[in-house]
Order: sequence, then structure tokens, then C-alpha cells
Amino acid sequence: MNRVYGKAKNAKTASIIFSSTNTEKKNSVLKRVAMLLNEKRQPLLEANAVDLENAEQLLKEGKLNNALIKRLKLTSEKIDEIIEGVKSVAGQEELTGKTLSTLELDKGLELYRVSVPIGVICCIFESRPDALVQISSLCIKSGNAVILKGGSEALETNRFLFNLIRQCLEEEKLDKEALQLIETRADVKEILDLDGLIDLIIPRGSNSFVKFIQENTRIAVLGHASGICHVFVDKEADLCKAEKICFDAKTQYPAVCNAMETMLVHSAVAKEFLPKVCKKLIESGVKLFADKEALVILKENNLAAEQAKQENWSTEYNDLILNVRIVNCLDEAISHINQFGSRHTDSIVSEDKERSLKFINMVDSSSVMVNASTRFSDGYRYGLGAEVGINTGKIHTRGPSGLESLLTYKYILVGQGNIVADYSGKDAKKFSHKKLEKEWNSGY
Amino acid sequence: MNRVYGKAKNAKTASIIFSSTNTEKKNSVLKRVAMLLNEKRQPLLEANAVDLENAEQLLKEGKLNNALIKRLKLTSEKIDEIIEGVKSVAGQEELTGKTLSTLELDKGLELYRVSVPIGVICCIFESRPDALVQISSLCIKSGNAVILKGGSEALETNRFLFNLIRQCLEEEKLDKEALQLIETRADVKEILDLDGLIDLIIPRGSNSFVKFIQENTRIAVLGHASGICHVFVDKEADLCKAEKICFDAKTQYPAVCNAMETMLVHSAVAKEFLPKVCKKLIESGVKLFADKEALVILKENNLAAEQAKQENWSTEYNDLILNVRIVNCLDEAISHINQFGSRHTDSIVSEDKERSLKFINMVDSSSVMVNASTRFSDGYRYGLGAEVGINTGKIHTRGPSGLESLLTYKYILVGQGNIVADYSGKDAKKFSHKKLEKEWNSGY
Repeated sequence: MNRVYGKAKNAKTASIIFSSTNTEKKNSVLKRVAMLLNEKRQPLLEANAVDLENAEQLLKEGKLNNALIKRLKLTSEKIDEIIEGVKSVAGQEELTGKTLSTLELDKGLELYRVSVPIGVICCIFESRPDALVQISSLCIKSGNAVILKGGSEALETNRFLFNLIRQCLEEEKLDKEALQLIETRADVKEILDLDGLIDLIIPRGSNSFVKFIQENTRIAVLGHASGICHVFVDKEADLCKAEKICFDAKTQYPAVCNAMETMLVHSAVAKEFLPKVCKKLIESGVKLFADKEALVILKENNLAAEQAKQENWSTEYNDLILNVRIVNCLDEAISHINQFGSRHTDSIVSEDKERSLKFINMVDSSSVMVNASTRFSDGYRYGLGAEVGINTGKIHTRGPSGLESLLTYKYILVGQGNIVADYSGKDAKKFSHKKLEKEWNSGY
Repeated sequence: MNRVYGKAKNAKTASIIFSSTNTEKKNSVLKRVAMLLNEKRQPLLEANAVDLENAEQLLKEGKLNNALIKRLKLTSEKIDEIIEGVKSVAGQEELTGKTLSTLELDKGLELYRVSVPIGVICCIFESRPDALVQISSLCIKSGNAVILKGGSEALETNRFLFNLIRQCLEEEKLDKEALQLIETRADVKEILDLDGLIDLIIPRGSNSFVKFIQENTRIAVLGHASGICHVFVDKEADLCKAEKICFDAKTQYPAVCNAMETMLVHSAVAKEFLPKVCKKLIESGVKLFADKEALVILKENNLAAEQAKQENWSTEYNDLILNVRIVNCLDEAISHINQFGSRHTDSIVSEDKERSLKFINMVDSSSVMVNASTRFSDGYRYGLGAEVGINTGKIHTRGPSGLESLLTYKYILVGQGNIVADYSGKDAKKFSHKKLEKEWNSGY
């Protein structure tokens, strides 16, 4: 048996029993993980040091950048945060095994829809070592088996964390095969063909990487293609709020997917608004690409900007770069966003409720906001606890995706020997189709 | 602009406004469709007659079979059923625009999760003319634009029905471009590349067709791969119930995906159970494939059966053919189902609650049943009204999928100029993260 296939097969087998693990046991594992992480700080930092040493070498050879090394590096404070993260997942409400709906089909023939784990998840993530722990915690809490593939730069750190979590599963007499680690790109390619064993792939990474995964597998993919977020400053905007929001959305943390890439400004307020906000942005190091009309205003105020080309509107910068466009009406703003946006997060700044409502209804994005910074859209701020990713597709989940996105459901029908023939043809019995006033757990 | 691209583009544009159509208007369209179908029986039957004539010709040439012609043929009674179907969708509860969850992030910073239509659905369906009306009704009711592709044999009937529904949209001053019709396989191939315009493809048809679609598009696919359903007759079964259930599951309507393909029988009851039920099945024209142990028992009772080969266990017959296997324990039954089944519907016949519970928990199928026929698993019997299909995947929806499967959600964040910078770093404001006691509709 091939090695990767073997791991996937073991995960699948383990997933069947693992899916019904009770809440106490799952929380015990997570609490034990938190405890062991605390106890094993020193060897964990040592494993991380090996990765860092290798990374420094690659940095010298120009094969890595400084930002990656920063993300890779563990400190005692970061370990504290990871421990807090695990505890927070342990503290989250149990969502698996919940009765989602009930229906009496007929006297003694009862239908329950109950949430269950999806089964086997494969998550491919970046070089932050906390990602492995966060994803494993969410999968354990939801009752899913998981195949983990981390960034190759974090190899030793990931191995250490993986073995630590597996040890906790074993200590609680759970099947450690529910957690698997793969390490190479070739392994990932093999995974893509295993649609009989793996139920969902969650790739975190670049746009092109997610697209590659989507195009090369029949397995469902929960992916985050790109984050081209907009703020529209309406003619009814409180310009003071608008300035704060645009500045925050662009500069508070420009490297992330929910940062603003394009600022749309209503022509009625452009002359007043643009000079002020753009001066502040430029002073913070933001480079501007502006459309013709905006360019005129900026030039008049001696503010530097380049003329935006068509491709600018659909570029995700993740950097201190911003597109500026003047629009003549609300519809033009909405059209621009639906055409060039990535269905991630878009915000309107306006004091007019009717105009805001139109924006909310017609902008086809996973998060639409009124008078708030696009930077708010993430799992932690949305109260989901940890997130496995942000989905810019519209199927299964949308936007920041936490525990709930790792669940599906199962229909359970309990009868007394009922057959369909009795409900068809002449003298057919009728379905009662009325809601049952009981939960699955207590009902059977 | 290419023709198919143009249609998809028009559907996408129409979908934006169509998504917020209010319930009364959507129901008015559906009621008008029901009314017009009644008024236009004669021309509808005439359009259908043209299709039938062409089909008869193809039948003579051996290019079609009788069953297809039977499905294609409309009668006044069938039109009555179609009308009832449309009325029933109109009568269903509105699921679009519902507040799914709420959260106060901070005083004056409120998050709502609200159900919205997915956007543009492409549904590819078989030659039953009622499918076009059923799918259109569900898409209109949920607020989705839809691109329809019916069987080529139903060309004239589908055109007639398509124009009739479009007329009703126009009469209610809704954008008729929300409904599109494509007619050829080449059109379908073009559709597969339009992942910027189409949000979900629902292919109904053969296993190989669904797989072809899944392998050739980046668009999400809600598909039904196959229906290999099992009944397991446990050692604790009431054999009288078991006989009724197995007979119903195999013979009541063998051509459908929820019919039983394999009967698993516990060795402790095989000698008593098999001869009786198999005699009855054989008398109803069922051909048996049995494993060695079952074969011995059947031979002793002069009942005809062939020895099952490995491939029999994973074959969907949709016909009066049945696999029979004797298993020595519950675990063996569960393993068989998880290995050879298609995650559709599987049933245990047992009076023992603990054993039934284990079956329910460990069989990884969209419907698991106790003492009931697998034939119950469909949208109508499950109280969903009409269904767009049955999903054997585990993502988005599972099992019979109705209106709810055509919805996703949108996060709406309403602030007062809030920025993320205030919630990070030193002296960071804290999130309150408490449930809001109001709905989105009334809340803003």
C-alpha cells in the first residue's frame, strides 16, 4: 500500500468511530494539548530553532524572505497565544450531534436531521506553526479526522506539534490515526486523487495555489481565492467616519485579505474628501493609483498618484497600495464592486439608511458593511473562535469559516417496519408531516 | 459576445436585483404559472406531440427506448400534477432573507447573518418535462437566476414551458433574463468554464455524467453520483418487518436511486429468513446474486441464484436484481456498507436499540434508517416539497435537497464608524460578543 494512500485510509477508518466521540473526551484531549504545550516549551522552541536555522540559510541564498522567517519564529509569548487558542476551542459550544430539524412522517415514523462531522478533512496551510495546532483543535472538537500539510519551512516544528497532539489522543484512548501529517508537494498531488477517502480539502495560500487545487481534484474544496475589498464613500457619508474607516481598512494591517484595495468615492464629496484622506494615506507610505477624475483632484492638491489601468481594479495588493476611483452614483459603485471585487468584504460609508440597504442587498459579497472597516471580517472578531479559513465561494459556508464549516448532517429515520407501498397508489396512507417536539438524543 | 456567455451574463446581471424580490411577488409569479399552465393545456400538449413524434422516429431507428418516451409524454393528468407542484412551491415557507444568527461585536457594532439566494444556478436535467417547471419554481421561490438545460428529446415542450414562465416573470415586472434556456451539449461545455458567472451546477443524470461535470469545471457541483442502498437484517430483527421492508425496498420501484441493491443478513437468522424472502422476491421477478454462504441456503431450498462477484457489491442495478450477503456480526455489516455503499440510504432492521444506534452512528450515509424501507428517502416524503436533487456528497447539503440547498448567507455588519485599530494593541477595546435580541429586518 502506498504511503500517502495508507495515511488517508487510516484517517478514514479512524474517522468512523472518532465522529461519535463525546464532548468531555474531546475537551479532555484539547486541555491536555494545552497542558503539554506549556510543559514542552523548551523542546518545542528547540525544534523551531532547527527550522529557523534552515530558513536563515535559505534567506542568505535569496530563496526566502524576512517576512516568512518572522511568521515562522516561535517565542514563549507566541506559545502562550497558541495555548490560549486551544483552550478557547475547548471552551466552545458543542455543535456536533445537534438536532437540526425533526419531522413526524406518520405515527411511529420519525425523521431527525442531526449534525455530524464531515469525515476526513485535508488542510494545507502556510508556515505559521500555530496553524497546525489551530486546525487540529478545530477538527478534534468537531469530530473530524484530519490530514495536515504545513509549510515545508516549518517541518521540524510541525512534526513536534503533530506528535504532541497525537500523544494526547492516545492518552485519552482515542485513535491517533485520526491525525495524519504529510510533508511534500508530491504527497499533496496524491491526496487530490483520493476522493473516496477525503471529504473536503481546505487549501490556505495564494490565489493561484487554491485555483490549482480546485482544478485538479474532484474532492470538494473550501477555498479562499482572493481578497479585493472596497470601501465606498457615499455622498451621504459622514466624512470624518469615512476618513477613519478608509485609513484603518488600508493601513491597520495591509498584508491581509480583508484590507481595502480600492476606495470608491462619490463625485459629490470627492473634492472635499479626497485631498484630506489621501494626504494622510500618502504620509503613511501608501502608493495611489487613481482614475482620471480623481487624478485631477489629487494633482490640484499636489498629491502624488499614478493613473490606474484596467488591471489595477482587479489586483490584490496585500500591501500599502490603493486604487482610488470616483463614481457618479450608488449604482456605479455597486457595479464596480460586483465586477472587480472578489466577493469577500465591502463597506459603504453613509448616513442614509435607504442607500445603505440598497448597497447591502445588491453587493454580492460574503460580508457587506455599513460604517465599519473591512478589517472586521474575520473569525475571531465575528465571534466564531478560531477559523479554518475564509470562503469566497458561496457553497457550504461563506466568509469566515469556523467549527460549523467542518460539519454536515445526517438524516435518521426511525420506523416500525414502515414501507413505501403503503403510501402510494389507491387508498394510500397520508404523510402527517408535523414537527416533532423532541430532540434526537432524547427521542430514541 | 458569444451566445452562451451572453445568456450567463444576462442571468448574472438579473440575479442581483432578482435576489431581493419580495415573497408576495415571487408567489404571484408562481400562481400565475399555475394558472397559465391550466389555460394553455392544448398548445402545451401540441408542443409535446411534436417531441413525441420525433421520439417515435428515433425509437424506430433504435436510438431511444420505450421508457424514455413514457417519461417524455405529457397527459392532462400529468399537467394537473405539474400545476399542483408549482402551487405547492408557492405555498412553502419563505426561507430567503431570514436572520440566521446575530451578534453584537460592541455597542453599536452589530453583525447579522442573513440567508440569501446563491445567485445563478445551472441545472441540467433529464427528459421529464415536469423537471423544468419544478426547478424553475424552486429557483424563483428562492430568488435565484437559473440556466436550464433539459433533455434534447423534450426540446419543443421545454421551449413552450420556458416561454410560459418567462411571460409570467414579465407580467409581474420582474427581469425575465433571470430564466435562461440552453439546448445543446456544446452549450453545457461552454457553461463549465463560466466560473465567474455561475455559482452552482446541479447535474441530474447518470453517474458518469455527474462525474464528467465534476471533473471539468471549477464551479461547485451539487451532484448525485449513485445510489447503492443496503438493508441489514440484524439477528435481533423482527423477521416479519424485515421481509416487508426488503420486499418494498427492492420491488416497489426498482428503477430509482433509493431502491435496495444489496441485502445483508445476519448469519444467526439467515437460515430462517432467506428462503422466505427470496422466494417472494424471485416470484416478483428479482434475480439474485448471493455470496457463498447464502448460496448454500438458497440451493437447499431450491431457490435460483448466481454467485456474486466482487463487482456486484458496488453495482447500482436500478432494476429487479439484488445482491445477498450473509454477515457474522454488526461490524461486518457496517464495514460492508461503508466500503461498497454510495453514502445514500441504508437501513437496519432490528428491535435492539443499542445495535441500531451503533448502526446509525457508524454508517456514513446521508440517510440512515431503523425498521423502515430505504424508499422513504426523498424530498417529498421528507417534507421538503419539491427537490432539486439528492446529494451524495457531504458538502453544502446532504441527501434530498430542496429550497434550502439553493441558499447561502451573507454577513451584514452595521457600525457607527468603527475601526479595527481601536480593538488592537495596548488599551484595546474588548469585543462584547453577545447575542442580539432582534432580527435583521426589524433591526436596521
